[in-house]
Parts: sequence; C-alpha cells; structure tokens
Amino acid sequence: MFTLEVTGKVATITIARGAKANAVPIDQWGELEKLVVRANVSAASLVVIRSGDGRDFCAGSDLSELNLLSTSGLLRRRFRGVMKSAFARIRAVNKPTIAVIDGRCMGTGLSIATACDIRVCGPNALFAITPARFGISYPKEDVERLAMLVGSGQAARLLYSCDTIDSAEAHRIGLVEIFDRSGQPGAGLIQNIVDNAASSLMTLKAGLIGRAGADQRFEDHFATGEFATRLDAYDRAKTRL
Amino acid sequence: MFTLEVTGKVATITIARGAKANAVPIDQWGELEKLVVRANVSAASLVVIRSGDGRDFCAGSDLSELNLLSTSGLLRRRFRGVMKSAFARIRAVNKPTIAVIDGRCMGTGLSIATACDIRVCGPNALFAITPARFGISYPKEDVERLAMLVGSGQAARLLYSCDTIDSAEAHRIGLVEIFDRSGQPGAGLIQNIVDNAASSLMTLKAGLIGRAGADQRFEDHFATGEFATRLDAYDRAKTRL
Amino acid sequence: MFTLEVTGKVATITIARGAKANAVPIDQWGELEKLVVRANVSAASLVVIRSGDGRDFCAGSDLSELNLLSTSGLLRRRFRGVMKSAFARIRAVNKPTIAVIDGRCMGTGLSIATACDIRVCGPNALFAITPARFGISYPKEDVERLAMLVGSGQAARLLYSCDTIDSAEAHRIGLVEIFDRSGQPGAGLIQNIVDNAASSLMTLKAGLIGRAGADQRFEDHFATGEFATRLDAYDRAKTRL
Repeated sequence: MFTLEVTGKVATITIARGAKANAVPIDQWGELEKLVVRANVSAASLVVIRSGDGRDFCAGSDLSELNLLSTSGLLRRRFRGVMKSAFARIRAVNKPTIAVIDGRCMGTGLSIATACDIRVCGPNALFAITPARFGISYPKEDVERLAMLVGSGQAARLLYSCDTIDSAEAHRIGLVEIFDRSGQPGAGLIQNIVDNAASSLMTLKAGLIGRAGADQRFEDHFATGEFATRLDAYDRAKTRL
Repeated sequence: MFTLEVTGKVATITIARGAKANAVPIDQWGELEKLVVRANVSAASLVVIRSGDGRDFCAGSDLSELNLLSTSGLLRRRFRGVMKSAFARIRAVNKPTIAVIDGRCMGTGLSIATACDIRVCGPNALFAITPARFGISYPKEDVERLAMLVGSGQAARLLYSCDTIDSAEAHRIGLVEIFDRSGQPGAGLIQNIVDNAASSLMTLKAGLIGRAGADQRFEDHFATGEFATRLDAYDRAKTRL
Repeated sequence: MFTLEVTGKVATITIARGAKANAVPIDQWGELEKLVVRANVSAASLVVIRSGDGRDFCAGSDLSELNLLSTSGLLRRRFRGVMKSAFARIRAVNKPTIAVIDGRCMGTGLSIATACDIRVCGPNALFAITPARFGISYPKEDVERLAMLVGSGQAARLLYSCDTIDSAEAHRIGLVEIFDRSGQPGAGLIQNIVDNAASSLMTLKAGLIGRAGADQRFEDHFATGEFATRLDAYDRAKTRL
C-alpha cells in the first residue's frame, strides 16, 4: 500500500489503500519504514508523504485487525515495535520531510504526519485521535510529538475528547503549518524548498532535530563552492536590476 | 469556599466566594487540595474546576490578606507552600482535569486553570496576571506552566505588562483550548470525554504528564475486556449502517 | 550603526544603517553587545531594540561581506563567536527586553528579535530567514529560540522554504506577540510595563529565563517596601472609588 517515487529532487511516498481510507495493517508499517530508508539515501533533497489518490491521508491503524492483539503479548510488542521504528525513521530522515494532508488523518495516520517536519493541508482535511473511544491508548512518543506541536492542552483535548477537527482548526492550533487552498496542496511549498541548496536543507534539518555538530557545520558552509556560486548568482541578479 | 460534588462520571470542584470575586484566602489553598485528593480517588472519570455562581472563575489570592506576609518569613513560606502543594496536586490528578472559565481569571486563579489539562472559556472571560503591579512576583512553577501553554513570549507579555486579555485573545494565544459560545461552556467537551473509556483516559493522562510506564500500558490495553467490548460495539454499529 | 539612549525608565538601542536596510557588518556585532551590556547596568527598567528610522528593523548579516569568510576558518569562527555572544547577552539582560519591529526583519536580524523577551510589530513588517537560498545555514541557538517561539514545524517551514511572511502571519504563528496597528508600535506596551514595579520585572525575568533562586525571591518580595507602598496606594484608590 506504500510506494516510493523519486522525481528530480523530490522523493514521494504515497499511501494507497482506498477501500480502507488508507488504514495501515500491522505488517505494512515495516514496508513504510523500508521506503523511508530508501528515500533517505536517495538523491532527492526532500521527502513528501501523501495520499495516493488525494482523498484520505490515512485513517490510522486498521481496526479490523487489532482484535488479534488481545491474546498475544508477543504480537502486541511487535505491533508497538514496528510503529515506533517507522516513526523514528521518518523523524531521523536527513532532509526535509513534508506531510501533504487532505481528507481523513486519524490516530496513527496523524502520527505519520507529526513525525514529518512540516504539515500542509488542503480544505477537506479532518483530524482525530480516537483510541480512547475503543478503550486503548496512543503511543508515548506520538503523544510527545503531538504536544510539541500543539501544546499539552490541545493534545489533551484531542486525546481525551476524540473530537474531530477540520483544516481551519488544525491550522489555528498549529497541528498543520500551512493551510493551502490552492487546489494543489503543498506544491508551492515543495517548489520553494527544492529551489534552495540541498546542503543547507540537510544542515538545517540536523539542527532542528538536535543532531550534534550543527555549530561546526554552520561555519563550514561559508567555505563551500555552493555558497560562492549562489552568492555570485545573487550579486549578478542584483546588478542587473 | 470550595466544594466537591461527584455526579456520575464527573467530579466538580466549585469555587464560590462571590463578594470577593472568588479570591482565595491563604488558609483555603489547603481546602482546595483536600478536595482535589478526594476527587482523585473518587469513581469519577474526570475532574472539573469551575465557578460556583458562573460569574468570576477566580480573582487570585486575596490581596487584603497579603500585607500580613510582610513581617513573617514563616508565613510567607507557608503561603508559598500551600499554593505549590495545591497546584502540584491538581497537576498529578490521575484523570483528565478541566477548568471551565468565565468572568475574571487572575493571578493565582489562572494558576489553578493552568494546572488543569484543558481550559474552556465562555464569552465573558478576562485573564490577567498582575503581581508586577503590586511589587510582588509569580510562583516559579506557575510561570513555567504558563510559558508551556502560550510560549515564553506571551508569558513575558502577560507578566510584565499586567495586560488584561479577553476570551478571543486567550484562545488565540493558546491560554484556553476551547472558546465555547454555547451558553453552557464546557458541557459539550465534558460529555465527549466521559463517553470514552475511563481506563484510556487515565493512561493518556499518565502519558501527558510524563509518568513512567506509558509504553507498557499502551500494549496492555489491547488485552482488556474494555477494548473487546468497545470494538465489538463499534463493529455492530458499523454493520447496522 | 547602533546607539543607546536611556530616557527615564526606558533604555532604547536603535539600529540605523539605512542604505543597507540595517544589515549588520561583522565588526558591528561587538558594538551591539557593548550597548546591551551598558543597557543592562543602566537605571532603566526595560530595554527596547528598534530601528533608528522606523523603516526596516534589520536585514540580517551584510551579505556583501560574507564572501570574505570563504578563505579563513579563523574569520568564520570569529563571525560565529561575535553573533553568539551578542545574542546570549541580549538573552541574559536582567530586565524585560522588547523588539519593536516594522519593515524587513530577516535572518540574523530576526535573531536579534528572538533573543528579546517580547516582539511587537507594526503593519509593514516582513519576516524571512534565507540562508538556505545562499547555501549557508542558521546558528544553532537561533534555530532553537525560533522553534521555542513558533514550534518546530513553523521553524522548519521558515528555514527550509525561505518564505517571507507578513505581520498577520507572524502574529498568527507566535513569531510576534503583539501586532500593534496604532501608528506607534510598542508605545502602549512599553508604558504598561514601566508603570509596574522594576523589582518585580527583574524577578519575573529571572524566572522566565530559568535563573536559580526565583522561588526564594517570590517570598522575599512580600517583605519589601515596594510591596507595602503599592498595596497601600491600591487600597486608597479603591476607597476613593
């Protein structure tokens, strides 16, 4: 249900399981992780995660399977493990990661989005985290990423109430950074990012996720050919004006 | 001035001292703490703190008493201690806590609200933190909880300027999560929460306040009867559609 | 290009280099730091940083100089060092610091603003962080201060895309605390702050930047003459009503 395509500077992972609103079966989390690993080492300078058909982003874990977990501690541990590993891998991608969201974005589907650096949504997005409705819970790191984005108060409100919120409210509380009504959500942002220096993007990403060495890399950039070339192009453009 | 009532799944602590806009005398912080302890061990699945008469939430510490503090270091230490203990107890309640706010919510009255997980306000709420106007300060943990909710910049603005902000601005900056214009602020949110599984709410709360063991509890929920029952009810409802 | 003026309770540092949109040459960061040190020990009770001519706040580092950095590791280290030192000094000022922003506020110019406690902007402010456009990066602590204010998602969006945002969007995402359309941005806020007790402001600042001892200072304030005087004035004003 996950596929990866690298076109120019953009690696796109699509989620496609239309009949189930892109809900993820247990054994597919490992597939997502594999594609994230491939996108990470690809020549692309950013990674996009989006719906294959543009309708629902992802309805979360496939509920119809979760009753299997009731009798096996091993299976429960495995379920927890594959999700945790996939989200950690998205988080650690060494270049910008962007979730482009429209339609339903629920539960662990929203966890995919919060593992990315930036979230863009279209006008029909709907967000909810509903484990409390089913007598279950939400992974620790996913709670933490959610609270980092929207604050602990809005995290509590979403988790306790299972309320569904729309694009405008998600944008208002900071669950998505950009509410894009253009008809092609994310296209403008992606273009603006890939126009910039890929080496800069990787250093900025390292800084944003707190990797060591960001200070030294800040200094080193001034000695690169990329800086010389881009500064020169900028000076020429100014002179022509 | 504080009372506790448990009705069904909801424990409600009311604040009522109308002539003083619900300002709290020094010796009443311990009473608040006692009720919080009782609410915590009650059968309720969430705790609401609200005004008894629906006008002011709480005007903070009763200023008319605070001159007593000038001559006694012991009394100052006691004042600091009882407030700190009450707020810590609210923070540590093992189920969702919701402040329902209308009218004035000032100083340490706002500290009661920020110690809760979620804040809902009605249309007439007014928020301010005014110790700097009186040559005093605001407790360390209360500054930290405020900054966690609204950011250090808005915390600085409120603390330095003593500006009063209304419901709309409080909602905009994240000081309240929900601005409820329904005439019954909080009623909808509270209903949505108590419809969910109490065991889920307690695990989510543990995760939100960073208690250890949230990971293991995430897995354990799948083995509970509550999960089986709720999943079954969900499947039947779907089949009937 | 930087000047300091102390008038009554307000220390104002102005940035003035109009032909370059107030861009900062390498050797001027040390000058800024010196003025911040003087403002810190002045009799003022708050420090304002603003544009000298009221047009651009600060366009960041002077790009026309940065090619000098390509051949000298020593010069790069010095550049990094003087900026880091200046921002740390602003951060550590022992009283409230306010950036009043209109016009362009870019790159390390925005770093000056994020080092302050509060940001107020007028209607013509424009914000952008564009190092990725030039193949360079943004200092580690500046990324952290940015992410503290607007969240890691909006920080990523600004840093990766180099998008320019206006006053309304900066206000919406929390990059500025107050969008002041009054024609005299910041004047109202500054007046409200200096009306309050200078000793309170210093204790609150210590708490906001996490200095030790805030707890003890909270208690000690009740024993000060400032508290007695201000409480007395408040009681008299109430009685007159």
